[in-house]
Amino acid sequence: MSLREILTSMIEQVDGAHAVMLMGYDCMAVDEVRRGEPDFDAQAMAVEYATVIRDIRRTIEVVGAGDMEEMTITTTNAGMVLRILNDDFFALFVLSRTANQGKARFLLSARALDLIQSVE
Amino acid sequence: MSLREILTSMIEQVDGAHAVMLMGYDCMAVDEVRRGEPDFDAQAMAVEYATVIRDIRRTIEVVGAGDMEEMTITTTNAGMVLRILNDDFFALFVLSRTANQGKARFLLSARALDLIQSVE
Repeated sequence: MSLREILTSMIEQVDGAHAVMLMGYDCMAVDEVRRGEPDFDAQAMAVEYATVIRDIRRTIEVVGAGDMEEMTITTTNAGMVLRILNDDFFALFVLSRTANQGKARFLLSARALDLIQSVE
Repeated sequence: MSLREILTSMIEQVDGAHAVMLMGYDCMAVDEVRRGEPDFDAQAMAVEYATVIRDIRRTIEVVGAGDMEEMTITTTNAGMVLRILNDDFFALFVLSRTANQGKARFLLSARALDLIQSVE
């Protein structure tokens, strides 16, 4: 299964998902699949988060709280679920406020290995 | 109900919670209640997050994704649930890996107004 096929399969399983992306910490999206149009700039949000994640991972390491696995952010009109894949990549869903965040978390976890293998 | 009483009531309802804190964006804990001993520095983690949250809130504002409400972070051996209360304060639970994250999220939301009123 290609990366594009994996991402497409993932977004089709989450009602209210605006986008699912595989990204590097250099803030470049390796690939992404979008659906509908969020009323905000999902791409810009993902890029900004890449920087923040570097800070959070460093913090977790410094305080000895293990390795970062997942982050979710909820705003008044959107949601975001992000999963660390390895030292090079992370994957994230950008969601509407009403989307099933739990399903997005499950899929990111369940497909993590497939996503990593698709870019190796 | 005093702030200390609210925080104590909250931590008692979440099995596996290490700490619950009310913090300012200046990285000062207004008050906190701890239970047991995490094998990492929960206080240092909370302080570091305060800085990160400023960046995330700014990002969300810039891309027009509404106002930030909540953030969760899961690591290999800990969890953290954080809720924005207003422009001055946020509250967070520091959790063990096995703690009920959903219950912590619920309590932060349900007690948000009580927490705000306790410091006004």
